[in-house]
Amino acid sequence: MDLRFDFARRARIGLGEAVLCAGKSGQQIEHVIGLALARDTPLLLTRMSAAQFDALSPGCRARTDYDPRSGTAIAGPWQPAAGPPRVAVVSAGSSDIAVAHEAERTLAFYGEAAHAVHDVGVAGLWRLLEQEAELRHYPVLIAVAGMDGALFSVLGGLVGGLVIAVPTSTGYGAARHGRTALFSALTSCAPGIVAANIDNGYGAACAALRALRPPAAPA
Amino acid sequence: MDLRFDFARRARIGLGEAVLCAGKSGQQIEHVIGLALARDTPLLLTRMSAAQFDALSPGCRARTDYDPRSGTAIAGPWQPAAGPPRVAVVSAGSSDIAVAHEAERTLAFYGEAAHAVHDVGVAGLWRLLEQEAELRHYPVLIAVAGMDGALFSVLGGLVGGLVIAVPTSTGYGAARHGRTALFSALTSCAPGIVAANIDNGYGAACAALRALRPPAAPA
Amino acid sequence: MDLRFDFARRARIGLGEAVLCAGKSGQQIEHVIGLALARDTPLLLTRMSAAQFDALSPGCRARTDYDPRSGTAIAGPWQPAAGPPRVAVVSAGSSDIAVAHEAERTLAFYGEAAHAVHDVGVAGLWRLLEQEAELRHYPVLIAVAGMDGALFSVLGGLVGGLVIAVPTSTGYGAARHGRTALFSALTSCAPGIVAANIDNGYGAACAALRALRPPAAPA
Amino acid sequence: MDLRFDFARRARIGLGEAVLCAGKSGQQIEHVIGLALARDTPLLLTRMSAAQFDALSPGCRARTDYDPRSGTAIAGPWQPAAGPPRVAVVSAGSSDIAVAHEAERTLAFYGEAAHAVHDVGVAGLWRLLEQEAELRHYPVLIAVAGMDGALFSVLGGLVGGLVIAVPTSTGYGAARHGRTALFSALTSCAPGIVAANIDNGYGAACAALRALRPPAAPA
Amino acid sequence: MDLRFDFARRARIGLGEAVLCAGKSGQQIEHVIGLALARDTPLLLTRMSAAQFDALSPGCRARTDYDPRSGTAIAGPWQPAAGPPRVAVVSAGSSDIAVAHEAERTLAFYGEAAHAVHDVGVAGLWRLLEQEAELRHYPVLIAVAGMDGALFSVLGGLVGGLVIAVPTSTGYGAARHGRTALFSALTSCAPGIVAANIDNGYGAACAALRALRPPAAPA
Amino acid sequence: MDLRFDFARRARIGLGEAVLCAGKSGQQIEHVIGLALARDTPLLLTRMSAAQFDALSPGCRARTDYDPRSGTAIAGPWQPAAGPPRVAVVSAGSSDIAVAHEAERTLAFYGEAAHAVHDVGVAGLWRLLEQEAELRHYPVLIAVAGMDGALFSVLGGLVGGLVIAVPTSTGYGAARHGRTALFSALTSCAPGIVAANIDNGYGAACAALRALRPPAAPA
Amino acid sequence: MDLRFDFARRARIGLGEAVLCAGKSGQQIEHVIGLALARDTPLLLTRMSAAQFDALSPGCRARTDYDPRSGTAIAGPWQPAAGPPRVAVVSAGSSDIAVAHEAERTLAFYGEAAHAVHDVGVAGLWRLLEQEAELRHYPVLIAVAGMDGALFSVLGGLVGGLVIAVPTSTGYGAARHGRTALFSALTSCAPGIVAANIDNGYGAACAALRALRPPAAPA
Amino acid sequence: MDLRFDFARRARIGLGEAVLCAGKSGQQIEHVIGLALARDTPLLLTRMSAAQFDALSPGCRARTDYDPRSGTAIAGPWQPAAGPPRVAVVSAGSSDIAVAHEAERTLAFYGEAAHAVHDVGVAGLWRLLEQEAELRHYPVLIAVAGMDGALFSVLGGLVGGLVIAVPTSTGYGAARHGRTALFSALTSCAPGIVAANIDNGYGAACAALRALRPPAAPA
Repeated sequence: MDLRFDFARRARIGLGEAVLCAGKSGQQIEHVIGLALARDTPLLLTRMSAAQFDALSPGCRARTDYDPRSGTAIAGPWQPAAGPPRVAVVSAGSSDIAVAHEAERTLAFYGEAAHAVHDVGVAGLWRLLEQEAELRHYPVLIAVAGMDGALFSVLGGLVGGLVIAVPTSTGYGAARHGRTALFSALTSCAPGIVAANIDNGYGAACAALRALRPPAAPA
Repeated sequence: MDLRFDFARRARIGLGEAVLCAGKSGQQIEHVIGLALARDTPLLLTRMSAAQFDALSPGCRARTDYDPRSGTAIAGPWQPAAGPPRVAVVSAGSSDIAVAHEAERTLAFYGEAAHAVHDVGVAGLWRLLEQEAELRHYPVLIAVAGMDGALFSVLGGLVGGLVIAVPTSTGYGAARHGRTALFSALTSCAPGIVAANIDNGYGAACAALRALRPPAAPA
Repeated sequence: MDLRFDFARRARIGLGEAVLCAGKSGQQIEHVIGLALARDTPLLLTRMSAAQFDALSPGCRARTDYDPRSGTAIAGPWQPAAGPPRVAVVSAGSSDIAVAHEAERTLAFYGEAAHAVHDVGVAGLWRLLEQEAELRHYPVLIAVAGMDGALFSVLGGLVGGLVIAVPTSTGYGAARHGRTALFSALTSCAPGIVAANIDNGYGAACAALRALRPPAAPA
Repeated sequence: MDLRFDFARRARIGLGEAVLCAGKSGQQIEHVIGLALARDTPLLLTRMSAAQFDALSPGCRARTDYDPRSGTAIAGPWQPAAGPPRVAVVSAGSSDIAVAHEAERTLAFYGEAAHAVHDVGVAGLWRLLEQEAELRHYPVLIAVAGMDGALFSVLGGLVGGLVIAVPTSTGYGAARHGRTALFSALTSCAPGIVAANIDNGYGAACAALRALRPPAAPA
Repeated sequence: MDLRFDFARRARIGLGEAVLCAGKSGQQIEHVIGLALARDTPLLLTRMSAAQFDALSPGCRARTDYDPRSGTAIAGPWQPAAGPPRVAVVSAGSSDIAVAHEAERTLAFYGEAAHAVHDVGVAGLWRLLEQEAELRHYPVLIAVAGMDGALFSVLGGLVGGLVIAVPTSTGYGAARHGRTALFSALTSCAPGIVAANIDNGYGAACAALRALRPPAAPA
Repeated sequence: MDLRFDFARRARIGLGEAVLCAGKSGQQIEHVIGLALARDTPLLLTRMSAAQFDALSPGCRARTDYDPRSGTAIAGPWQPAAGPPRVAVVSAGSSDIAVAHEAERTLAFYGEAAHAVHDVGVAGLWRLLEQEAELRHYPVLIAVAGMDGALFSVLGGLVGGLVIAVPTSTGYGAARHGRTALFSALTSCAPGIVAANIDNGYGAACAALRALRPPAAPA
Repeated sequence: MDLRFDFARRARIGLGEAVLCAGKSGQQIEHVIGLALARDTPLLLTRMSAAQFDALSPGCRARTDYDPRSGTAIAGPWQPAAGPPRVAVVSAGSSDIAVAHEAERTLAFYGEAAHAVHDVGVAGLWRLLEQEAELRHYPVLIAVAGMDGALFSVLGGLVGGLVIAVPTSTGYGAARHGRTALFSALTSCAPGIVAANIDNGYGAACAALRALRPPAAPA
Repeated sequence: MDLRFDFARRARIGLGEAVLCAGKSGQQIEHVIGLALARDTPLLLTRMSAAQFDALSPGCRARTDYDPRSGTAIAGPWQPAAGPPRVAVVSAGSSDIAVAHEAERTLAFYGEAAHAVHDVGVAGLWRLLEQEAELRHYPVLIAVAGMDGALFSVLGGLVGGLVIAVPTSTGYGAARHGRTALFSALTSCAPGIVAANIDNGYGAACAALRALRPPAAPA
């Protein structure tokens, strides 16, 4: 195991190193969880399949909180978010929910609650407009959508908070595995929309945390 | 001049051959206008620059109605559309208007009036919602938008008429010369949106004419 | 289940929300069928695999009409189309037929019969020319083709009805998963061809319905 | 002039509609400036060339503050930013400075000062590390880089503030007009980097303003 | 001049090295023509602009036969083709004719006459069908078309000769500078279509010459 | 079975319709073989997997000659090629051999023998140069190569016969599933190289047959 | 077996032909190992899966040294590298290690030891800076990274040795299967970075060997 | 002028920072030359047009050695390379020579002579084979080619030195502005070829210098 895990990262920038499980062997995952448990440091793992979780040793599983909806796991000491939510997670279709959950779970890992609004794609615009008054109060909104990504622009024109677009790989043909939604976010006619990588609910949550927990202003 | 102009097309399918002037020499344009005038047949020319029009012979210019906003010209006998409009042409931003005008002019050439609604991009959603009641009555709507093409989906979720999307090459970077708007149209979350080529206001109008003027039903 | 199903859509635009089953869990599909059955509202489901249908509960299966050729299912009360067909569905090769069937089944769900003409790719041009006289009478034609998509242009030059191209992902190499056929449709030398997304027989049928069932003209 | 300028946008989301001058005629620009001046509302114009500014009428030029470095103009009443900067604008090479200036100017238009750090590309890493201590104090950092976009990841690993990447079209060949830098930002190995469109300094500044000026938290 | 001109090529493979003038300086073109004239060897030059021809020295111009329609020049001793044509050059639209002429002129340089059929795009199918009986007799057909490239498949289904497709960069948007026509040729539903590079009339003619002038069969 | 098999094609252009088995059901394949056997017409099937062949009925298998190396099958009466070969099939690497075999088998189906030269990639140039004298005698050469496709240009510079390039999807990363080899063929520095689709040994053989069996010259 | 294995290559250029096992049958692999063993020549095989190794005959397996971490095998007589390492292999994330091992193993096959430094991605910059002093002494460095490929530029700005970038297909979405990392390497802001193909640890090692073992200088 | 020129780079890695003039203003270029002259440090500038050179002040021009063939300039004290060349620069066509000259001039700036071999594209293979014996002695070879980039593989199979491929943007259509040649280099069938960016003669020379001037080996 040639690992140089960046345990210093959380102290440095407020966000720890997370483990992307896709493509990793069970042995690699077990090893890094072991490192975290030995330090009594909470560790977030993403894109963990149920099979990967099941393949962990019983002792490891016992100290790891696995959420199959989002494919995330949290090893080590950890407490759910408390307090009112400061982030709204808004998703367009039922196929986008897993990515939205990844964002919510990442926020929870860092102690931030999220207000979730799912299945409000703009083809049925009333669904989003019903939520407009509520959504206008959030400082940060994570918008999750695939296909045409039209949700990003409509939402960005309605609210003044920071809108972080997460394009998803939902759709086929001209959806191009999420690139159409990504490029829609980047060319949004609403000002100031920013984008995370395709399907990257984790990254969007990290950006939200950067925005919500600024360092002390410069002297 | 090795031309085999398809003058039979209008009788065959209801739409004549039009002349795309981009890339053609003045001599070529003059020649084909001459053929139409000699037959006393109206001829539509698209993508004609002011310089191309100015380079025509005086006699040719005198019998050709040139519209610089849309870059279209009509040679030969021709009468403006009369009667109430059956097509709404809806465009998102001020950069999309030239393409919208090309569609309107093509419809006019075939005797169809159009109801034009410009500058209703979804970043200011109220602009489109103000028009919703009116737009719901049109059997065909031509929607013109660049960048994220979010207009296509929002409009398609509000009205029941045929929505023909014309993506435009407006925008830069991730707009990819209109491909983002094109793919947005094709992956629209609203059902039954169809697309014409990028910047192809002429083609969208032809599709509208096909929809509005169906052949007699089969026996 | 965070579903906000848009049951109002059919009243609004004449087309209801359909369920794309690809990527959905059996639980999700069962849930939404349940919602529709509870309301006694017919529901169209697309891209449902035989395995997905078989995994439904017996009660659900009993009230759902599954068609394996097109991968569509219809839950709830429903009556086959009656009356003469107003749409021709024309496909190029035997690999395109499943997509054509998806279009036909969507039309049937909304009560529209279709006239199907399969396997008339232009490499054997006589096959299409044999049908020309018949096809000229249809107000709407759905053309389904992969690879070079040459069918779209040839058909569009022969008939005056609305031609909706459905590119398919048939072919390999330079077919680029349907993008070559899609771009062929969009750059067709025949005027007024419009395109739906790759393999999207459902969307093409919805566009046909928009064209065939226009709202009342504006006052 | 079929303009429906969205003057209500600033009240709605805190950001007004700006005018992208690229591709607009002098008449169009003059017209919209006139609308703003008549309302005594400040108006931001971007991508205005020196030639476009020079073509304005003398009266219009007199009331418009044009900055050739960034290609921005501000019409109407306006006051420069005061107070300590809350945003750092960090750029990699001398070719990226114009985009950085567009961001700085947009911030200034909204009354936010910026701390600018230019020419700190990572090939000479000491240049950025010299600034590290200072940069760690900013809640928002706009990072501007073309070519490989390596600045985004290095910066994102050093600071805890929100990092908004603006890829630029600097570079040739494999730089692919900014797409390489864009995709680098989106796949950054540092967590929580978000991206604006290529060359979009204006959009990045708008996102910074969304993050710095959150709406009141929900009750 | 670091030139190693491959004067041996014609003896080796029957086709000499030609000079692509695009991007070359007047001095470079003059130099290579001089080399050919000194050897009394005929030399074909392609993509020569009128400006490039006019910039040649008078002595060079006098011994060079320039054809502005195709942008080709032939320096040195040369005789036009005689005898009945063995190649048909078939083009779809009037914008494709320059490329067709490049093919015809290359054939002529090598002593092969060509039968030219222009402006027979498949949107007006009768134009091509009128020529079918004639075209069936040619051993080689060069088909030139842009946009959707539908001509390639229709022609390939009608004739038994070798069909060499030359896609052209005609068209805009989804034509993608000729790539759509190129990919159409490669995925043609007619069997045995082969393609040359986009706009490469010269290369198609060389392929025709390879097919028409085979080496002696192996012993 | 909505089949309109083009049995007239062979009489029309000398090449019959072949059946691409990829993506077809066993029932579809069985059906079309049955049609051919009933007419006593030989039928070529390509891309047939061993599993597809094994799933045919015993009676069908008995009258079908399956070749697993090339994935081709020939149903009905058929005789191997006799006489000296007029086509050389030249392939670069051992991964390209299956595609080469598809070409050889297609030629054999039409009674043409082929001279096969495998594993002569240009990294070991001596392997190809050893064959040069022999290869110079063939009127048609089918060159099969993946990755960089350098074989096409080297071969095309050595021989005067018609060179038909078949790019293969061999290689990874920048090989881009055969597109790099395809584009190499199209931009070959050797004059007159033409290309078939990626992995399309069948199509290349059909082109060779078109070149070798020209129709009677026009009167 | 139509193999023309290039056993002369090592004498010619110092590097023998290696066997890429991906896509090869067990029979093909067994055959080429047999050829090497018969000549008592060491043979390197890459991309060999455990299943492919297990399928070899016992006699073949006994004389083949298989390394599952890198997917490489060495058949025939072979001695591990001795002497101090001249190449540093530096990788960014734990998903890049397999590719790094392929490079190390190729170097070992040719008798070159490597100094391996893994998991030093620039998001935790201290990890690389800790190694800087050591890495500055190596004449050749192989840098292995996926996603944004930022390691290439940072490393290239710190050391003077030859930096060979190996982009990996690690990452999703905008990582585009390694193309983002590849293009980052090619547009690096550090001067003189060169790139091998995506995931091509073998090729990078061959380039290192070319650099370390130059031929005798020209006379 | 917000410049932080990295004058420390040459001491750090042996290669100084060079100035890419494309896109820079005359004032910017003049300024950075002034900085170098003030330090009496030689400075390399690339992609400088004749117009950019002519716009420099007379004093600046007098101390700057401009080479129009390569578009490079050297300001400050500088001595041409002496001693026998250790790098061969090999280019395929006459359009590739400017890029080759950029590489030669960069080498000269650092005191390395180059052996230049131009116009040896593989379509006339004898031209390269004539040079083979000579080229085999060079430790580093820079190969410059556009279009199909076949030169890279052929050269790489003949010599044992380090081959650095520089793809050029020569060619049209499928050449894709140099991407075809780039991908050919990366997928070369010859082992150990590495690539620089498209048209980047400067970068290839820097890589050559890294290979030729290794740091002292680690202790």
